[in-house]
Amino acid sequence: MSEVPTHVTRVTLSSSTPDGDVLAVEEPLEIRIGEKNIAVTMRTPGDDFDLAAGFLFTEGVIGRVGDVESIRHWGSPNVVRVALRDGVALDASKLDRHFYTTSSCGICGKTSIEALRVVVEPLPHATPVRASVIHRLPSLLQTGQATFRRTGGLHGAAIFDAEGELVCLREDVGRHNAVDKAIGALFREGRTGAILMVSGRASFEIVQKAIVGRIGVLAAVGAPSSLAVDLARELNLTLLGFVRDDRFNVYAGEVSQ
Amino acid sequence: MSEVPTHVTRVTLSSSTPDGDVLAVEEPLEIRIGEKNIAVTMRTPGDDFDLAAGFLFTEGVIGRVGDVESIRHWGSPNVVRVALRDGVALDASKLDRHFYTTSSCGICGKTSIEALRVVVEPLPHATPVRASVIHRLPSLLQTGQATFRRTGGLHGAAIFDAEGELVCLREDVGRHNAVDKAIGALFREGRTGAILMVSGRASFEIVQKAIVGRIGVLAAVGAPSSLAVDLARELNLTLLGFVRDDRFNVYAGEVSQ
Repeated sequence: MSEVPTHVTRVTLSSSTPDGDVLAVEEPLEIRIGEKNIAVTMRTPGDDFDLAAGFLFTEGVIGRVGDVESIRHWGSPNVVRVALRDGVALDASKLDRHFYTTSSCGICGKTSIEALRVVVEPLPHATPVRASVIHRLPSLLQTGQATFRRTGGLHGAAIFDAEGELVCLREDVGRHNAVDKAIGALFREGRTGAILMVSGRASFEIVQKAIVGRIGVLAAVGAPSSLAVDLARELNLTLLGFVRDDRFNVYAGEVSQ
Repeated sequence: MSEVPTHVTRVTLSSSTPDGDVLAVEEPLEIRIGEKNIAVTMRTPGDDFDLAAGFLFTEGVIGRVGDVESIRHWGSPNVVRVALRDGVALDASKLDRHFYTTSSCGICGKTSIEALRVVVEPLPHATPVRASVIHRLPSLLQTGQATFRRTGGLHGAAIFDAEGELVCLREDVGRHNAVDKAIGALFREGRTGAILMVSGRASFEIVQKAIVGRIGVLAAVGAPSSLAVDLARELNLTLLGFVRDDRFNVYAGEVSQ
């Protein structure tokens, strides 16, 4: 259930009219590994297994789909329990690092990017993209965002192949959750993609998730932050911002016409 | 320092042009109480003391400005240390609740809103507002968001009095941080305001911060989530969404023309 009806009063300069409206659903999801509570996130219900898998993968807690024995709801539609395969140890230091990097990244003497290098392997080389492929993406993202069109309240994340064909699209009230759902959906099939597009801005954490997901190009409808650009340039992610209205800006990497 | 210059390539359907651009700065801030690390948040530097005070206040860790002895940077521009006055005990259970409610709210058997009631006192009654006051707010917020205009990358939060006069405006790469900075700036002066306006969407956590800050009206440029509306109706917050272009929707509370 990703949307619910509600009643509103629509106010203009001259009128005030009762009406119906549709809201994007926001509910908490607790993600457990076995008996251990790993995280609680405010999310839009749906694709919960993709969200749990993508979250654990992009935060560095699990590395391969083969690490996962099962993912299921556990006593509540708002609790997901991930079971790891026999022999897959849950590295407690990775969990610590996870909590550290989720709330932020390394500080206290280290610069952020130095601390991050511990967690994220650089991409092997910058991925060049063709402008003609990028120009196609915004309309594909918009067309796919069905719940956003009805509620105005959901972030979208879409993964495309190198030719700009849509591979996977997910929506959520949370920016990070939409990305985790899209990456997690492919991760569960042992796949990845070439381009990640997000409906909002590109922050440090979105750049980090793209790199951990081994996706070479991040395209954002909104602006990137300073740290997003620094990290993309350091770790060979091609980073595009303001991707809309038949134009975009290249902040890291190379694009050909 | 809220913005930094960078170089970009601007790509259109027919051209590709090197140019300069300006990025919103994103850096980690560690918030400590004494020697204890309370949280790390990705924020735009500036107004760090407002951010620390607003965060601790809206998360329920401190209750009155008189609880605070001093707030200062501590060994790094990215670490802020808050000292509490003698006799002000740091309630460990509040901190636990803080971490719980930051990552989310109560689950596991309780519904979210039931769990929240433990943390947040309802507002005494719904605050009615005049439509003529609300219609003025979007242009005041836009005019005040200087860094957003240059970077496209900052969320804004503004607090107004009941007549719609701007009391305080803050910007940040993080939605929650902008709200914490604005509420924190007034909290440090022992003041509050009548209307909180945010440049983005209204989530559960923004609604919670408004209520803890005893602000009766939350106006969002974007959409509210289902949980934001539920919480606002339960706890007497007047909640307005899509406040732009001379119109808005009333999701909770009463508005007169």
